[in-house]
Amino acid sequence: MVDIIYVLELIGIAAFAISGMIVARSKNMDPVGVFTIGFITALGGGTLRDLIMDNHPLYWIKHQELPMLILAMAIVFSYWQRAERLRESRILLPDAIGLGVFSILGAQLALDLGHSLFVASLLGVMTGTFGGALRDTLCNEVPYIFRKDQIYASISFAGCWVYFLCQWLLSNEALPLTIGLLFIVMVRLLAVRFDIRLQRDPGNH
Amino acid sequence: MVDIIYVLELIGIAAFAISGMIVARSKNMDPVGVFTIGFITALGGGTLRDLIMDNHPLYWIKHQELPMLILAMAIVFSYWQRAERLRESRILLPDAIGLGVFSILGAQLALDLGHSLFVASLLGVMTGTFGGALRDTLCNEVPYIFRKDQIYASISFAGCWVYFLCQWLLSNEALPLTIGLLFIVMVRLLAVRFDIRLQRDPGNH
Amino acid sequence: MVDIIYVLELIGIAAFAISGMIVARSKNMDPVGVFTIGFITALGGGTLRDLIMDNHPLYWIKHQELPMLILAMAIVFSYWQRAERLRESRILLPDAIGLGVFSILGAQLALDLGHSLFVASLLGVMTGTFGGALRDTLCNEVPYIFRKDQIYASISFAGCWVYFLCQWLLSNEALPLTIGLLFIVMVRLLAVRFDIRLQRDPGNH
Repeated sequence: MVDIIYVLELIGIAAFAISGMIVARSKNMDPVGVFTIGFITALGGGTLRDLIMDNHPLYWIKHQELPMLILAMAIVFSYWQRAERLRESRILLPDAIGLGVFSILGAQLALDLGHSLFVASLLGVMTGTFGGALRDTLCNEVPYIFRKDQIYASISFAGCWVYFLCQWLLSNEALPLTIGLLFIVMVRLLAVRFDIRLQRDPGNH
Repeated sequence: MVDIIYVLELIGIAAFAISGMIVARSKNMDPVGVFTIGFITALGGGTLRDLIMDNHPLYWIKHQELPMLILAMAIVFSYWQRAERLRESRILLPDAIGLGVFSILGAQLALDLGHSLFVASLLGVMTGTFGGALRDTLCNEVPYIFRKDQIYASISFAGCWVYFLCQWLLSNEALPLTIGLLFIVMVRLLAVRFDIRLQRDPGNH
Repeated sequence: MVDIIYVLELIGIAAFAISGMIVARSKNMDPVGVFTIGFITALGGGTLRDLIMDNHPLYWIKHQELPMLILAMAIVFSYWQRAERLRESRILLPDAIGLGVFSILGAQLALDLGHSLFVASLLGVMTGTFGGALRDTLCNEVPYIFRKDQIYASISFAGCWVYFLCQWLLSNEALPLTIGLLFIVMVRLLAVRFDIRLQRDPGNH
């Protein structure tokens, strides 16, 4: 299953890097800023995951083609005129894909290292949300995880448990990955589309 | 002595989690925000300590009942009406208890791992102050450690040396822990009560 | 070559600590704040480097005279009247020296641990820039790495490659270190002096 996981990792990294570079361009950052934000968004969650679980060498040090890919993307993004006109709202889809991929992969790595389902779901949420939270903090936005008008971390948490449930029910290996990932991406997009929240008008009740 | 230390750890985690959740509620965060801030405040200092000293698995991964406790507290706190009316100033006592417990436990772990008294006192301060500093930063407050009108980190530092001194003077094991912990909590509360600072009117002299 | 590297490390730490303490004094912080900012600026980059490369014990735990030096400097800085009048612009030279020393040493450590030139250059940039970025963030300044009117991280990156090139061309050990270091310090000072940027008037083209 290494191949599927590596392909998913590439997709997640590309998606998160794009989300970071769109925000960096919309803040008029120079090429170094675009690369830095892309790098931190794409690799921040996995770095936190690997440090917490003592999983060395870090995945982007073992696979140095990953930071190279981000560097190439940053060069294209910095000198490509159309990227400048992308509005920040365009990060929704790449961010949802990154959230889905890294939540599931973070949880699976924790299971591989022998941790319990509960610890694995916490590490899934951390892996999925940390890169985006750094991106938003560094670009002076309120991270999704702290925005009352958004559900974000709870979708990642629920998605991890959907993934565990499918692993337990199905003998297949690729299917639970796909279902968990699609669950997070679809629910995230639907939650934004239909403005679903955990709490309405806090303070008025 | 493992039992005393574990009980102290539970107390410190519950105290810091309460301090984080009070701030999160006072900022009108949703239940996920309340859990996240509680989690980061309670476990941030110990995570930094364990990463710096390469002490794996991290204590909240080894003892998964600790994040479960925080999750249960967050659910109670989020749906309990009275928690909403707690003013932010109510964090003073739980924050002082968390500061005391984690400063002493961080320093003791460093000694157990063979570090010198000086390094142990630095790690005590880091363990005691980092969770609260993250809480305040994430909730847009100035961390105590950078507030001129408060003494905070220096109490933690002094408390570690009081603890080392008692360990050296007394053959007992539990007594130095208790004295160090009470020293930090009492001095912190007295410093706030009587407005004791390191520097008065900086810039006027 | 251990001796040269240790002497450079001392110089880099003293330089970064001074830069941090100047900013902390200019923000009217108390002695604990001055020490904390000095400590984080001087040791932050190396701590990140050692954590990412799993290089334990951390260098400032192995060499506890380094945090002791920072503590002594903080006491002098806090009670020395003239330090108060230092303007923040005075950090330019110590910051450039710290950037140069830590970029080259971070890259060299990565090579010693068997990483590729590309990974080593990334780790050089992280080691060189992270302490200063923490300093600026904690003191409510925009980190140099995200300022459009400054080139900073790209000088560190270029300096690492100048260092690798000199190592490859010259059989000497000390000379490449010196050239790489001087390259970064000189280019940084010249870039500020002559206002060299990567991008002019972003948004107007």
